[in-house]
Parts: sequence; structure tokens; C-alpha cells
Amino acid sequence: MRKIFPKMVRQPGTPPGTLTHTGEQKVEEVSISLFDYDENGFQERTVEKIEDCFPFKDSPTVTWININGLHVVENVEKIGKHFNIHPLVLEDILHTDQRPKMEDLDEYIYIVARMLSLPVGGHEVGSEQLSIVLGENVVITFQERPGDMFDPIRDRIRKGKGRVRKSGADYLAYLLLDTIVDSCFMILEQFGDIIEGLEEDLFAHPTVESLHAIHHLKRESLALKRAVWPLREVISGLQRAETPLVRDSTGMYLKDVYDHTIQVIDTIESQRDMVSGLQDLYLSTISNRMNEVMKVLTIIATIFIPLTFVAGIYGMNFENMPELGWEYGYFAALTVMAILGAIMVYFFRRNHWL
Amino acid sequence: MRKIFPKMVRQPGTPPGTLTHTGEQKVEEVSISLFDYDENGFQERTVEKIEDCFPFKDSPTVTWININGLHVVENVEKIGKHFNIHPLVLEDILHTDQRPKMEDLDEYIYIVARMLSLPVGGHEVGSEQLSIVLGENVVITFQERPGDMFDPIRDRIRKGKGRVRKSGADYLAYLLLDTIVDSCFMILEQFGDIIEGLEEDLFAHPTVESLHAIHHLKRESLALKRAVWPLREVISGLQRAETPLVRDSTGMYLKDVYDHTIQVIDTIESQRDMVSGLQDLYLSTISNRMNEVMKVLTIIATIFIPLTFVAGIYGMNFENMPELGWEYGYFAALTVMAILGAIMVYFFRRNHWL
Amino acid sequence: MRKIFPKMVRQPGTPPGTLTHTGEQKVEEVSISLFDYDENGFQERTVEKIEDCFPFKDSPTVTWININGLHVVENVEKIGKHFNIHPLVLEDILHTDQRPKMEDLDEYIYIVARMLSLPVGGHEVGSEQLSIVLGENVVITFQERPGDMFDPIRDRIRKGKGRVRKSGADYLAYLLLDTIVDSCFMILEQFGDIIEGLEEDLFAHPTVESLHAIHHLKRESLALKRAVWPLREVISGLQRAETPLVRDSTGMYLKDVYDHTIQVIDTIESQRDMVSGLQDLYLSTISNRMNEVMKVLTIIATIFIPLTFVAGIYGMNFENMPELGWEYGYFAALTVMAILGAIMVYFFRRNHWL
Amino acid sequence: MRKIFPKMVRQPGTPPGTLTHTGEQKVEEVSISLFDYDENGFQERTVEKIEDCFPFKDSPTVTWININGLHVVENVEKIGKHFNIHPLVLEDILHTDQRPKMEDLDEYIYIVARMLSLPVGGHEVGSEQLSIVLGENVVITFQERPGDMFDPIRDRIRKGKGRVRKSGADYLAYLLLDTIVDSCFMILEQFGDIIEGLEEDLFAHPTVESLHAIHHLKRESLALKRAVWPLREVISGLQRAETPLVRDSTGMYLKDVYDHTIQVIDTIESQRDMVSGLQDLYLSTISNRMNEVMKVLTIIATIFIPLTFVAGIYGMNFENMPELGWEYGYFAALTVMAILGAIMVYFFRRNHWL
Amino acid sequence: MRKIFPKMVRQPGTPPGTLTHTGEQKVEEVSISLFDYDENGFQERTVEKIEDCFPFKDSPTVTWININGLHVVENVEKIGKHFNIHPLVLEDILHTDQRPKMEDLDEYIYIVARMLSLPVGGHEVGSEQLSIVLGENVVITFQERPGDMFDPIRDRIRKGKGRVRKSGADYLAYLLLDTIVDSCFMILEQFGDIIEGLEEDLFAHPTVESLHAIHHLKRESLALKRAVWPLREVISGLQRAETPLVRDSTGMYLKDVYDHTIQVIDTIESQRDMVSGLQDLYLSTISNRMNEVMKVLTIIATIFIPLTFVAGIYGMNFENMPELGWEYGYFAALTVMAILGAIMVYFFRRNHWL
Repeated sequence: MRKIFPKMVRQPGTPPGTLTHTGEQKVEEVSISLFDYDENGFQERTVEKIEDCFPFKDSPTVTWININGLHVVENVEKIGKHFNIHPLVLEDILHTDQRPKMEDLDEYIYIVARMLSLPVGGHEVGSEQLSIVLGENVVITFQERPGDMFDPIRDRIRKGKGRVRKSGADYLAYLLLDTIVDSCFMILEQFGDIIEGLEEDLFAHPTVESLHAIHHLKRESLALKRAVWPLREVISGLQRAETPLVRDSTGMYLKDVYDHTIQVIDTIESQRDMVSGLQDLYLSTISNRMNEVMKVLTIIATIFIPLTFVAGIYGMNFENMPELGWEYGYFAALTVMAILGAIMVYFFRRNHWL
Repeated sequence: MRKIFPKMVRQPGTPPGTLTHTGEQKVEEVSISLFDYDENGFQERTVEKIEDCFPFKDSPTVTWININGLHVVENVEKIGKHFNIHPLVLEDILHTDQRPKMEDLDEYIYIVARMLSLPVGGHEVGSEQLSIVLGENVVITFQERPGDMFDPIRDRIRKGKGRVRKSGADYLAYLLLDTIVDSCFMILEQFGDIIEGLEEDLFAHPTVESLHAIHHLKRESLALKRAVWPLREVISGLQRAETPLVRDSTGMYLKDVYDHTIQVIDTIESQRDMVSGLQDLYLSTISNRMNEVMKVLTIIATIFIPLTFVAGIYGMNFENMPELGWEYGYFAALTVMAILGAIMVYFFRRNHWL
Repeated sequence: MRKIFPKMVRQPGTPPGTLTHTGEQKVEEVSISLFDYDENGFQERTVEKIEDCFPFKDSPTVTWININGLHVVENVEKIGKHFNIHPLVLEDILHTDQRPKMEDLDEYIYIVARMLSLPVGGHEVGSEQLSIVLGENVVITFQERPGDMFDPIRDRIRKGKGRVRKSGADYLAYLLLDTIVDSCFMILEQFGDIIEGLEEDLFAHPTVESLHAIHHLKRESLALKRAVWPLREVISGLQRAETPLVRDSTGMYLKDVYDHTIQVIDTIESQRDMVSGLQDLYLSTISNRMNEVMKVLTIIATIFIPLTFVAGIYGMNFENMPELGWEYGYFAALTVMAILGAIMVYFFRRNHWL
Repeated sequence: MRKIFPKMVRQPGTPPGTLTHTGEQKVEEVSISLFDYDENGFQERTVEKIEDCFPFKDSPTVTWININGLHVVENVEKIGKHFNIHPLVLEDILHTDQRPKMEDLDEYIYIVARMLSLPVGGHEVGSEQLSIVLGENVVITFQERPGDMFDPIRDRIRKGKGRVRKSGADYLAYLLLDTIVDSCFMILEQFGDIIEGLEEDLFAHPTVESLHAIHHLKRESLALKRAVWPLREVISGLQRAETPLVRDSTGMYLKDVYDHTIQVIDTIESQRDMVSGLQDLYLSTISNRMNEVMKVLTIIATIFIPLTFVAGIYGMNFENMPELGWEYGYFAALTVMAILGAIMVYFFRRNHWL
Repeated sequence: MRKIFPKMVRQPGTPPGTLTHTGEQKVEEVSISLFDYDENGFQERTVEKIEDCFPFKDSPTVTWININGLHVVENVEKIGKHFNIHPLVLEDILHTDQRPKMEDLDEYIYIVARMLSLPVGGHEVGSEQLSIVLGENVVITFQERPGDMFDPIRDRIRKGKGRVRKSGADYLAYLLLDTIVDSCFMILEQFGDIIEGLEEDLFAHPTVESLHAIHHLKRESLALKRAVWPLREVISGLQRAETPLVRDSTGMYLKDVYDHTIQVIDTIESQRDMVSGLQDLYLSTISNRMNEVMKVLTIIATIFIPLTFVAGIYGMNFENMPELGWEYGYFAALTVMAILGAIMVYFFRRNHWL
């Protein structure tokens, strides 16, 4: 099972700024890809050595360097050196259990976000750290493993669709965040389907599995919330940042993705409300059922225990029991029993138990 | 059953600003109506082609263009082009699961609100997105389907009732929002009736249906809350907007509708409080009933089980059982049983079980 | 039963500012009374026609016009015209389910408050809307029915007790609000008594009636909270209002009534806390009792069921059952049963069930 | 039993500023004590008539007048007149159920605090109102009854211990507040002990008494919270007050007592958390126990009811029952029963019930 | 057992600023160590008498004085005198149950933090107060007992690893806080493991031990929260402090440790959410189980009680019971019973009880 609260800590005692990768290694080999584009053209490369990216640093075109796999610390170190990135930021890139945040360091902006995924029919939200370094005309992204949700963006760069080729590095960074937020909607939709399914189950026939599913959903909602909630501050931080790195023309787009984030958070909160409503419903339904069970037991026992007692009396072996000798004693006893039973049934009916 | 959390997302990978209609198509054909009025007169038209509205753009009279049906994307596109509306706004118009919001874009103000409806005797709050574009002397509204709650406003324009013909486009936008907020009161009244009915049911005779109704009410209250809560910000945004599009004379009216919104929100919160009080009441009542059931069972069983045991003893077939031979053994046994039973009854009375 | 959430809405489609009375008519005839006073003297009148009040408008003395009964809309209309009151304010006066609020309209201040009452031994908090229009040297109050809590104020005006005759119209408005807040303390005291009574009941002997009383108290507390909570803003609004209508000398008095309001709110919150504590207590007590009931049943059944089984064995009619022929078989069986029972009792004692 | 929500209200209809004592009279006779000191000396007096204190008003030395007992309203009235105290403040002094608050009235500062006490082994937090009037070189305190927690302060004045003799009236007021806050820690310690005792009880053997103790603790915690929470504002109000009455040198001490208040509030909140955790624990434990009880009953009943049925069959008196005539029929029946019982036991073991 | 709410109070009546140690004495002898370093070198000493540290006060190198053990009040007193520390601060150093806080006193900054520890496999979070006095070029730390988490820092000073030797006293203070925050992650990891273990237990087989573990975890989470929550303010206080004692270059590091603190708090809140989810799960599971138990009992009893009754009828000794004489009466009776039983089983199957 996936760990709920993953490792988050540098080895105690290591000086701050020491570069070690604390997450688990999720890929065999590091792969580096590079996009370089402006309005007039683009080139796309798979880079062998990290140093091959460096010449693009000062080009006037927008450069997007994407690094998959963080266990080769030297890559990060070299990039840090070349692009003049603060050691504490490099450390954050390598510690892959960060909370989303945004830091404005004048020369560049550092953004941490989490890419969430939920396989169709799956129940566990996967989470991968995405570090974005937004410099002038350059975006460097660090992912833990290859395969991401950004292929449509790459496509748009290749085909010159949309505004991306006409805009700067900040627009590219916006597109990355926008894609991440949009992907949350799909997770929320799947959660919504699960919630509706559970609701129907609870109305029809609650089982222990429903209970476990509710608990599970609670847990995953919490995980989702923890990943998305801080995004709001990240994006509003970008909006308010007084830096030439984020142009005014991108503001409208940031506002749009901010609205989406609010909507995601709003939906998460509603779903959490719904789920805890389901828990209440489950408990009430169980209580109800137990009540029904108890009623059945009580009705049966209350009718038959006194009758059995009567039968027991006439099963006694006393020598002198006058009723036993009566000709219709047996039938009288049966009649008495029938009347007793009828009284009980009447009593239950009056109390709405039957 | 209506989906609780409807689809909210542009296809991942589509560039922002791409115009596609994401909601379900709720009407066969698009219908467009136009009002054009000032203090002295008005005209009302049903427009065939969207282009027929364009001449009214620069007229000094107030123009209200209403479009029912959003699946013909070109209409929205053309309007966007002619009225110079930002692609992201057009996208929001077409994505019909927006959270209410308000954006001031200098040339025009964009408002999203949700029209809520609850058929009499119905249980599910219907929700339809209303997009309002408020420009100078022009109001453009986008609805998902024909048939709305605005006929009284149209009537007032036709008959020159009230201030509407004497006021500007901002007053018309205010009237739309005011009508939406007023319609919430009617839903709240229906909810109030349902709550009171449930309360009486719970006091008299709680059933599983009550439980389901409580859960249902919770869910619909949540839906209502999600639609109304953001309206507060929308309206206060309009009040604070530093734009010539909203005149000072409309401020007093916005304050009025703001007060109503607060009152709606306040009532929703109170009702949610009440509903969760009902849930507690239900659980307590069920526990109570189970307690009563258990008491009946316990009383019957505790009285008769020992008596049956005594009868069982004298039903044994040992050859040497002196009591069996006694002349009044049988009656002695009956007496013993009666005394035993009386003791039990006394015990229960003393413990307030009877 | 009183409606929990009363009608709050103007007929949809009526233009804003249309004057219709939406509350239920609570009085046969409208009665109007007038006080006019300054430091040197006072006059008190019962006014037949509303027009008779108008001459007092510009007098330098303080004038208090009180109108009981709102179903004659013309009265309100005429006052509105003469005193130059905004149509939306007049509408609010007639819609008698307003949330308390305060509006500063330069020429006058409009205040809505709710007069609460709880008959001794009663259980339902009554609520009546009081509208106060505070102008220069004039206070106009609108009530739904005659009979209010302000007789002591009238008395003070008549007898010149206290500061009222020496002060302006703002002091009179303060006195009205102060009386309303003070009356809340009396309701809270009655609630406090009910809570303490319930607490004792729950400790001694909880019944279904306790549960219903708890639920009822919750509901009434909520109603009280809804009426008082907004008063805080009303009064702090008066304190902060930059208007010559509220003099500096009244500030100290407003601070006093503000403190009282805080104390009322604080006590309401504490009482709500207490009441929900009572609900928890109720549930726990019921669980406890059920536990006790179950224990009794279990003890009796667990002791006697095995014994009855033994008796059943020797009640079988097999021809060859050696024990039956033993001389002391019967007594041996009784002894075995006694021992079995003793073991059971020992087991229960060890588990602290007896 | 102490009232939970004591009387808080002036008689409705009394003009504001009317002096009547609303609390219950807690002492036979009023006693007044006076301290007058500076760095060089001090005098201590028991004052017979309130007028005897007046000469100290304008002395350059610090004067502390302490009045125990508030039912003689004239005392308060005379002080008010001589020291020029606002009637509303005098009213607050006499209404002994005030919420702690602080008012800066230029000439003097008025502080209300509540002295809390919890007798060792006691369960009810006692509360007494302390009114402090801090003027220039004078502190006047009003208590409801003699006997307080301030003897150590008196001692320090007498012996010249600490800074008190070297400091002004504001330092004396600080010392009073500091003593009150420190006394809360002792109550919290006692609560902490009770909580730990309850926790152990709940783990070992929960009883109805535990439940009542939990409820009681909740109630007292609430009372404590209500008395301490507003103190925070009182003290921060003193810190921020722009008045020569509070000297800069006292600021550091006010910060210290502010920190202590925060710590008290923090601990109260934690304890309330703990107590509601105990309530949950209680409920869960009771459910658990009921489960255990039910299991015992079910095991016994499920094993013996079928066996008794078998015995019942062979206790029937049909003439033609072949098994009865078999030589080893009896023993076969016993064997069948034993096997049946064993199967049941196996079933329970497999389900972890035994 | 460790006390939940430890002693926090100076003896009532002691003047503020009186130095007495209120915590329990946790070490036999006081030990004092001293580090003195700059970029070029360092010396490390164990100091016998506190006075031996004083010469380092005015050296330009950074000096770190660490005192383990607080019961010798004179040490603290002498340091206070020599370094000119306010008596209230000295008092706080000796009262070892402080809430973390930060005070800027111009000449030095006083920081209280709590060092938390959780032995592997242990269940109780240990807490020790660390007082930091940060002056110019000097850091004085006070601990309650020897043995801490700072050895890696000492090592770095000795070996000149990292930035510590090149930086000032503020960087050293930062390192101490950073180490404390990092140590929280390890506790959170252990908690995470416990939570996951409990979750599995609850799904598989909940016991009373699980319940106690949940309660325990709640308590410890609360303790952790109380220690960490105020750290946020401490660190942001340091960031915002306008003092030359904290250099700009340290700001970036403080931001880093601030982010970590936020992440710790965030995780604590999530874990508390999880734990209370576990409690709900526990209660629901227990209810479920009881339901299962009741079903078994009800099925067995409902099937066999009527059958036993039938057997009881034919065990009666009436002389005239025609069925008894029938040749196949016995078999008919058995058949009737079998049919009755089958009906019951069918009924249970239809209700999904079997």
C-alpha cells in the first residue's frame, strides 16, 4: 500500500543546502529534453549531457528544459551552478515531498506543484513533485519520472497552436500550472462518481465494504486537498509578484487558472462534506437495521416464550394435576395459547412494530 | 438521477481560450431575443441571425440581447468578436458549470450567476448558468435553455413600469441579479416546509424514509449553498467596482440585493444547522426505540425464562421425585412461579422499566 | 406551530420599491401615537390621521412617532413622502422578516431590529420587527402590532426621569435598542433555567421528552442567535457612523449597549455549547441504559438457559436412561444445576457485571 | 447547585446609569481597606466611612482603596462623585455578572476581571467580579466579598519586597491581573489531574459516574473559558492604550502577563479537546462493552437453544417414537448434542468470538 | 505516566521576576559547554564555573554557551547580570513549561522552543524546553538535561563543514531551530506508521487496544501540535524583526525553516484528521459487528424458539391428546418442524441476513 505520509526530511544533521535525493528513485535513467522556440520556429532535442543545455541560457528565444529523474544529483548541481540557483532551492527540488509553494528570488521564480493522477477505476491518487524554475526566457522543470500530462503543450509548441509560441516563458509556466489544475477536475469527477455509487449502495444495501470505501475516499480527499489547497497561494503569489518575469499580459491567464483552483478547492470541500454525510448515513442505516433485527427477535421471543412456558407447565409430572384429566383440557390449553399469542400480536401492531 | 458534481473541465490539452461547449445540450435550437429601450420607447425583436444585433451596439438606447442555447459556438464567437470580448470570457460562457464570479474588464463587466429552481413538490434543485456581459448601454445574457424567471422584467420594460426604462444598463443587470436572489427565497421556503414536515415525522414516527429525506436535504442545501455563497462576492464586487459602467444611483439597489443575499446565506446556514440537528434527533430516536424494544424483550425473557426452568424441573422423569407425589405439589409449584414472577415485576417497576 | 423560517420574499416580478405588506396582518386597526418633548415639557397624543404628525417635522423639539400595524400601506407611503424616505427603505419596513441591519442615508438612519419575547413557562421565542427611522429631532418607529416593551421609556419621558428629556433623538433611538438587548437577557435566563432542569432530568431519568426538549431548545437558540448576532454590526455601525445624527455624547451609551450585545452573544454561544453537550449526554446515557438492560437479559438468560437444557435432558422419554432410576438421581441433578448456576454467577461477578 | 448562567440584567425599564446592585449579597457588612505607599514608606488602614479615603486622592503617593461588598450602593455613589466616575461605569461595578472588559476613559481606566477559585477536591469553579479603577496614583478595587488572593501583594507592599513600592499605580493594577491569571494555572492543574484520573477510569472500568464527571468538566471548562478568553483583549487593550496612566516601564510586565494569558487559553482549549476526546472514548467503550455482553449472550443462547430443542423432541409423548425404545438411544442423543455443541464452539472460534 | 498538563505556574504570591526553578530537576549536576569560533578557527571547552564564560562576551568571534540543568539558579542569575538580561526573561528560562515564543529586547532576542523526541517504538512524545538568548556574536542556550539533538551542529563547527563558521550568531540560532523542526518530521513519520498500522488493524480485526491506541495518538498529536504551532509565529517573528541581530543573509534560511514548519503543522492537522477518521471507523465497525452478532442470535433464536414450542406442546401430559396416538404422529410433527424451519430460513435469505 502507498504510504499515507511519505518521508519528508533531510537526514538530521546534514547542513542546510546539502544536495541529496530523499524521495525513492522512480526511474532507471535520467532523461532530459529541451524545447527552444519563438514565434518563427522551434527546435526539440533529447539531451545526453546536461551541459548541452547551457548554451541556450542566453538565447533570446524561450527555452524549456525538462529533466525526468532526480537521483543523479550532479545534474541538479550543475544546473544550479550554471543558472545561479540558490542551494536551498536545489535542496527543495531534490526533496520530493514538498508542499506546493512559490518563491520569488529576483533572478528567477521557483514553483513547486504536485501532479496528481488517478487511474480509471483506481482508488489511490498518485502524486509526483514538479519543480518549475522560471527565469528570463527559460523554464526548467524537474520531474521524478518520465511520462507526464504535458504532451498537449509540447504539441502546441510543435504546431504553433494557440498563443504559446507568441508568448514568453511565463506563459509556458502558466500552461504547466493550468494543465495541473485541469487534471484535478478529472480526479474530482471520478470521486463524484464514486460518491454517487456509494450513496446508492447505502440506500439499497450497506455493507462493510461501503464503510471501507467511505474511509478510503476520506483519506484520498484529504490527500487531494493537501496538494491543491496551497496552489491557491502559489498562483495568487505569481499574480501579485512584482517582477518583470511575469508580464502583465499573462495576468488575465493567471486569474483564469486562479478561478479554476478556487473551483477545485470548493468542490473538494463539498465532496468532503458529502463523504462525511455518507458516514453519518452509514451509521444511521446500521442502527436502523439493528433496530429491525432486534424487533424480529423480540417479536418472536415475546410471542413464543410465554407459550412455551404454558406448554412446560402441562409437561410437569405431578401426580395430581386436575387439568390433565379433563376431556378437552388439551384443546383448552391450545386455545389459551392462541389467545395469548393473538394478544401479543395485537400489542405489537398497536406499537407499529408489525 | 441528476449528477451531483457535473463535468467542469475543458478537454485537457486544449489551449486556453479554445471555444467548445462543455455542458450538455439542453435545447434543440438557439433562440435570440432583443430589447432596445429608453425612457421614450422600446422595441422587442426575435433575432434570426446573430449579426442582426450588431447595429444596436453603438445606439444611445439600452440594448438587451438574450441568447438561449449555447451549443452553436459560432454565435458566441461572433458576438465576442463584435463586442471585443476576451477569449477566456467566451470560454467561461460556454463552460456551463462555473462558480458564480464577477470580472471587471474595463470595457465591460462579466458576471456569472446560477439560476436555481425547485419544482413544487420536487426535491432536486435545478441549476442553470446565466452569463451576463454588461457593457456601455448593452447587456448580453447567455442562458442554456429557453424559459427563465425574467418575464416580469420584460413586462416592466414593455409597460414602462418601475424605474427600468428610466435607468441604464447597469440597472437592468441589477434587476437580473435581484430576480435570481429573490427566487432563492422561494426555494428556501420549500426547504423550510420540508424541514418542518420532517421534524414532525421524527417526533411522531421516524422511518428509513425520514433518514433518506434528511440526507437528501443535506445534499440539496449544499448545492444551494455552493450556488449562492459566491454571489455575495459578485455583488460586493459590483458595488466596489471603480467603473463608469455601474452608476452611483444603482449603488443603493446593489446594497439592497446584497442585503438579500446575506439573508439567503444566513437562512441556508440556519437550515443546514437544523438539518444536522434532525440527523442527531433521528439517531437519538432510533437509539431510544431500540432501548424500548430491548426492554420489552428483557422483561418478557427475564420473567418467563426462570419460570420455564421451574416447569422443566418438574417435567423431569426421575423415578424418585418426592414433590411429584405430594397432593398439592402442582399448586405449590404454580404458587412459587407466581411469586417468582411478581418479584421480577416488582424489580422492573423499581427500576422504572414498567 | 409557529413557522421556523417565515416568508421573506417580495412577490417575484414586483419592481423593487413597490410597497406591499408581506407579513401576516397581526392587528385589526392601525394605531399611531406621538410624543414631542424637550427639556422643558412634553406632549403625548394619539393620532387619527397620519397627516397630523407632519407639522412636528420641523419643530426643534424631539418627536417620536410610533406606528402599530403595517397593513395600511398608505400610511407608510405618506410618511415616506413627507419625510423623504427612500422607496427601498419603505419596502424594508413593510417586509417584516428582515435581518437586523443599519443603513446610513445621510438625511436619516434606518435601523431594523427584532423584538423578542418568551412568555413565562412558554417555549417559543416570539419575534416582531421594529423599524426605526432616526432623523434630525425625529424618531419614527414601525411595529407590527400594539403592545411593546417600551412603556418604561414612555414613562421616563412623561416624568422627565433620567437623561432622556435632556438629550436628542439619537438618545431615544439608543434607549429603544438598549431595551431590546436587555430583554434578551431575560430570555437567556429562562433558557438557562430550562437547561439546568434538563441537565438534572438527564442525570436522574432521561425520557423521550428530554430529547424533544433538547431539540426544541436548539431550535429556539438558533432563532435567538439569528436575531441578535446582526445587532452587533448594527450598533457598531451606529458608533462608527460619521453623521451629525449621532452625537458624541451618545457614544458612551452605544458602547455600553454594544458590550451588552457582546455578552448576549457570548451567552447564546455558551448555551448552544451546553445544549449540544446535553445531546451528547443524552445519547451516552441511553447507550448506558441499553447496556444495563442487555446485561440483565444476558445474566438471566445465561444462567437459566443451560439449566433448562439439563432439565430438558432428564425430561426425555428414552426407555433406557440409567440416571432416572438412581435413588438420588433427582437430587444429584438439582445439585449439578445449583453448581452450574453458581459458576455463572461467579463469572459475572469477576467481570463486574453484578 | 450554583446557577450556570447567573442573572445579568438591570431591571428592564430602569434608566441606564441607575445604581442598583443586581448580584446576590454575599457579605453582611461592607469593609474598606486602604493602602498608601511610596518608595519611602507606607500606611495601611481599615476605613470606617468611605469619605475617609477622599483626602488621599490628590496625594503624590500611590493609594489603593479596596471595597469588599457592594450592597451599600451609596458607597459606590460617593466614590463615583468624588473621583468623577461615569454613571455607566458605576452601574457596571454593581452589576456583578459582567464579562471581563477594559475601558479607557481618559481620566481613569476601568477594568473588569473575574477572580476564579476551585477548592481542592471541589468541582465547581467559583467566580467573583473584581472591578479595578486605575486613576493617577490611585487604584480602587471593588469585590463582592472579603477574602481574596491578593494577600501576597499586600505583604510585598508592607515589606517593600519586589518593585511594587518603587512603581506606580499601573504596576499595582498589573500585579492584580497577574495574580488572577496565575490563579488560573492552579485551576488548570486541578482540571488536568481530574482529566488524567478520568482517563484511567475509562480505560479500566467506565461507569455512569465517569460520564457525569465528563459532562461536569465540560461545563466548568466552558465557565473558565468564558472568564479568561476576554482577558486577552483586556490586557492587550492596556498594552495599546495611549494614556499616561500606563507607563512604558510597565509594558514589559503587561507583555509577560499577556503571554501567560495566552498560555492559559491555549491550555483550556487543549483540555476541552481532551475532554471531548474522553466523551468519544466513553461512547466507544460502552459500545464495546455492549458488544461483549451481546457476544456472551449469543454464544450461550446459540449453543443451548438448539440442544434444548433436541431434548424437547425426545420429551414428546408420542406413542410411536422408535428412538425411545433403542437401547442406546439416550446415549446417542447425548452424543448428537455434544457434537452439535462442538460445531457451534468451532464456529465461534473461527469468527474470533471466543 | 507522564503528566499531560505539567505544572506551569510560579508560586502565587512570588513577585514577578523572582528566580526559582519550577520544573522537576532532571539532572544531577549542571554542565556547561562553550564554543567560540570564526572562519579561521574554533575552540571548545567544558566550563567549570559560569564566570569562565564571561571573557568571551566582547570577543568579535561567535560564542555559543550551552547550559544543561537549570536547578542551580545562581548560574542563571549570574549570566543574567553579566549579559544584562531582563529578570522576566530569566524567570521564563527557569519556568520550563513555557509555550514557544520569541521576544525582541533590542540588545538580544529571547527564543523559547521545545525539543521533542519520540523513542523508536515508544508512544510518548518527550518534551524539553530550550531557551535561546541571541545577542551580538553570542548564543546562550539553556537545556533541562544533557544530551540533545545538536551534535551534528557541533560537528559542523568543529570540522568547518557548511556555512556555519562563516556566518554569525543568528545563523547558529537558525541552525538550532532548523534541527528542532527537522526532528518533528521524524516524529510525524513514526505517527504515520502507527496510523497506517491502526488502519489495517481496524479493517481486519478491531480490538479494545485499537481504541486505546487511537485515543493515545490523539493525545500525543495534541501535545505535538501545542509545541509546534507557536513555532510558526516565533520564526516569522524572527523574519520580521527589525534588528541588526538578524542579518539579511539569514532571511533566506529563516524562510526555509518557516516553510518546513508550515509543512509540519499541515501534516499534524492531516494526521489529526486521519485519527479522528479512525475513531469514526472504529465506532462504525463496532456497530457493524454488533449487528452481525445480533443477526446470528436472532437467526438461531427465531428458528428454534418456535420449534421448541411445538416440541413442548407434544411434551404435555394431557390424557386426551389425539395426535399422540397416531401411528405417524411423531414423524408428522418432525415434518411440520422441518417445514417451519425452512420457512424461517427462506425469510432470512430474502432479507439478505444469510
